[in-house]
Amino acid sequence: MPSVAELAGYSSRVREALRAAGASVGDRIRISKGDLVVEGILMPRPALGDRDCVVVKLDSGYNIGIRFEEGTTIELLGPGAKPAFARPPKPERKPGLPEVAFISTGGTIASRVEYRTGAVRPALEAEDLYALFPELSDIAFIRAEVLYSLLSEDMRPENWAGMAERAAYYIRNGVDGVVIAHGTDTMTYSAAALSFALRGLSVPVVFVGAQRSSDRPSSDAALNLIGAFVAASRGPFAEVVVAMHEGMGDEAIAIHRGTRVRKCHTSRRDAFRSVNAPQLARVVGMDIQMLTDDYDRRGEGELEVLARFEPRVALLKAYPGMDPGLLDWLVDEGYRGVVLEGTGLGHVGYYMLDAIRRATREGLVVCMASQCIWGRVNMNVYERGRDLLAAGVIPLGDMLPETALVKLMWVLGSLTDDPEEAKALMLKPFAHEVGPRTPISTLAP
Amino acid sequence: MPSVAELAGYSSRVREALRAAGASVGDRIRISKGDLVVEGILMPRPALGDRDCVVVKLDSGYNIGIRFEEGTTIELLGPGAKPAFARPPKPERKPGLPEVAFISTGGTIASRVEYRTGAVRPALEAEDLYALFPELSDIAFIRAEVLYSLLSEDMRPENWAGMAERAAYYIRNGVDGVVIAHGTDTMTYSAAALSFALRGLSVPVVFVGAQRSSDRPSSDAALNLIGAFVAASRGPFAEVVVAMHEGMGDEAIAIHRGTRVRKCHTSRRDAFRSVNAPQLARVVGMDIQMLTDDYDRRGEGELEVLARFEPRVALLKAYPGMDPGLLDWLVDEGYRGVVLEGTGLGHVGYYMLDAIRRATREGLVVCMASQCIWGRVNMNVYERGRDLLAAGVIPLGDMLPETALVKLMWVLGSLTDDPEEAKALMLKPFAHEVGPRTPISTLAP
Repeated sequence: MPSVAELAGYSSRVREALRAAGASVGDRIRISKGDLVVEGILMPRPALGDRDCVVVKLDSGYNIGIRFEEGTTIELLGPGAKPAFARPPKPERKPGLPEVAFISTGGTIASRVEYRTGAVRPALEAEDLYALFPELSDIAFIRAEVLYSLLSEDMRPENWAGMAERAAYYIRNGVDGVVIAHGTDTMTYSAAALSFALRGLSVPVVFVGAQRSSDRPSSDAALNLIGAFVAASRGPFAEVVVAMHEGMGDEAIAIHRGTRVRKCHTSRRDAFRSVNAPQLARVVGMDIQMLTDDYDRRGEGELEVLARFEPRVALLKAYPGMDPGLLDWLVDEGYRGVVLEGTGLGHVGYYMLDAIRRATREGLVVCMASQCIWGRVNMNVYERGRDLLAAGVIPLGDMLPETALVKLMWVLGSLTDDPEEAKALMLKPFAHEVGPRTPISTLAP
Repeated sequence: MPSVAELAGYSSRVREALRAAGASVGDRIRISKGDLVVEGILMPRPALGDRDCVVVKLDSGYNIGIRFEEGTTIELLGPGAKPAFARPPKPERKPGLPEVAFISTGGTIASRVEYRTGAVRPALEAEDLYALFPELSDIAFIRAEVLYSLLSEDMRPENWAGMAERAAYYIRNGVDGVVIAHGTDTMTYSAAALSFALRGLSVPVVFVGAQRSSDRPSSDAALNLIGAFVAASRGPFAEVVVAMHEGMGDEAIAIHRGTRVRKCHTSRRDAFRSVNAPQLARVVGMDIQMLTDDYDRRGEGELEVLARFEPRVALLKAYPGMDPGLLDWLVDEGYRGVVLEGTGLGHVGYYMLDAIRRATREGLVVCMASQCIWGRVNMNVYERGRDLLAAGVIPLGDMLPETALVKLMWVLGSLTDDPEEAKALMLKPFAHEVGPRTPISTLAP
């Protein structure tokens, strides 16, 4: 008999129909409404939304809401999968296995849904990881901790600092690599941040996420996680990277450089792409294939953490009719820097020029990246670019706008207070975030 | 003997060296400086920048600046190409040829560089176009006008209205199609704007640009322009589209729907891509291959121009640590709407929620698109999305953020003053700008 608490979010008519069918949350049910027939697992009602709406998890893993109306029928098909969270036994440490730190910050990766309550519990202990993904016990000895349980859209620059400090703690304690589980929304911002903050890195630091949660059959969580542990334990590079599906299939996990990667699709498993730079590597099974020779080698470097990020730095995307008052507001509020996501080769409308000149005059560092995403800003081609250079705007070459934002926060937070010095530092590569000047011979197609 | 005026921008030492070599602007010269030897056409000195820097147009079409120093030598190789701007004879109208209006708004397409002065003159008369691109005389009888001479980054919503009115003028006067030459930076914003503003369109309206100016051997101007005229004169569709190179080679010109196209590279000829929708068509030689059957047919519709765009609409791209004060400022300034370019499926940080709730409470229309660019926002999957829906944010499906901005300006400028009505209209497709709800069966990969 279903308890009242489980169905609490539903309206009284829905609760009544569910009780009549004998269906509890977690059971497999069939809802029929005219021509529509849906089968799946009955889920608890979220706090917000229509309380007449019955939430069912389909076999595809997606939740669907069916509004209960006159004539809607509900049948109980049987008990659903109701995983228990029994703690698995602590594994023996296999001799000779590399040691990898696993820092969980939130997101759907490596979480488990408890069907009876709908609650998501982070898989915090190493034993949980081994139990969920048995392959991991042959790849690495894992030291796991939950640092945050944050939606990735809620990450702020202070969280980047926290991640950098924890990664450094494990590296100083001798791990062979670090894996950081992170929601996918802002993972690339965090990866860029740690790329700058962890100076003199000696091992791989691998961000990993999942586009689909691990309780769904189509989840990319397991393969991404295994790829991340292979990269962290055996990768020959000492850089901050992102490990995610390379294609729609399960052939390979792509390893992208943290400063050169972008989430380019809202939901596809292969949403993450290296931009303006080659993908760093690929993991196929237990093999790591390096795709470029231009990377920082494992085992070099004296670790230093420079993890202060200046919060008074903004990103503004330019558009026709943009209000220069947005930039004036930043200046009035005491902002220290701004990245403009300009059009084309790095332009903004004439009506922005006065505000930009005022901003640079008042000591803000104003940088230019391109909303085209691919390619490089070149502010010497057209008159407007030259106007902007004359106004003191710093052209960021082929740096991604998101990476540029993080770098400017880092330069002004960790390296210098002086705008002129900051401008020079924005042009200097620290973590492969910008390519060298494209040779003249390759400018023409 | 070179005149003083031509070399006026250069420093006295550069002028002296050029006079000693007998070189005028427009001549072919060789500059040697240590190991560096550069040959090309001597260009005039732009107003800004290092006056010791000699500007040379390379055979690739790119300008390069060589700083004149102790030991730098300049030789005159011969006179450069110095095109005259003699007016070609007025062509006879060939019987049976479709009539196409050509509206020039600026940009590098269909401009000619006068080497002696470095000035760019728009090719304004139909005769100039026929002279530059003789193929055009077999494609269409052209009625040409210069509406603007604007850098595309300087286009504002009032210019979209101007373009819509002029296009409508020609359509009402019986042309078979319209070609609008436009700089590439903001061409897709303008194309989206006319897609909304020209209701009941009966002929194609084709935006065309060039990534490389027509005085460079690698220019894409000629082929893009010919493709645009083929599409405008013979295309079976009655939509606003963009005609640009489909690939790096010269095989085909892509025809993209104006609401579904994005400039995805700063400089490549194939920078323009259809996003979240199939490319509409392809022009190969004089043939038009339709790539989808889902388009508005030529010859239908009663033209109506709705071309008011509300300027108090903004686009804000979300990022970690974003300042909610940016949104508060828009509310304080009396803005009517804002498009948020959220992360992932359409999210922003928790610290933005109060400002968003205040904005919707004060009557702003707040819409959500995704900075992923590809895919569609889905605010029912995660808690934050549901919070935002509860706060009154309108999810824009797979609409491009740039198109969303233009549409919101249009809805609030041309259709309604009422926020609730505007919200409903943002969800209604007007120009194929948003796809239908993806069927459940195709949500899983």
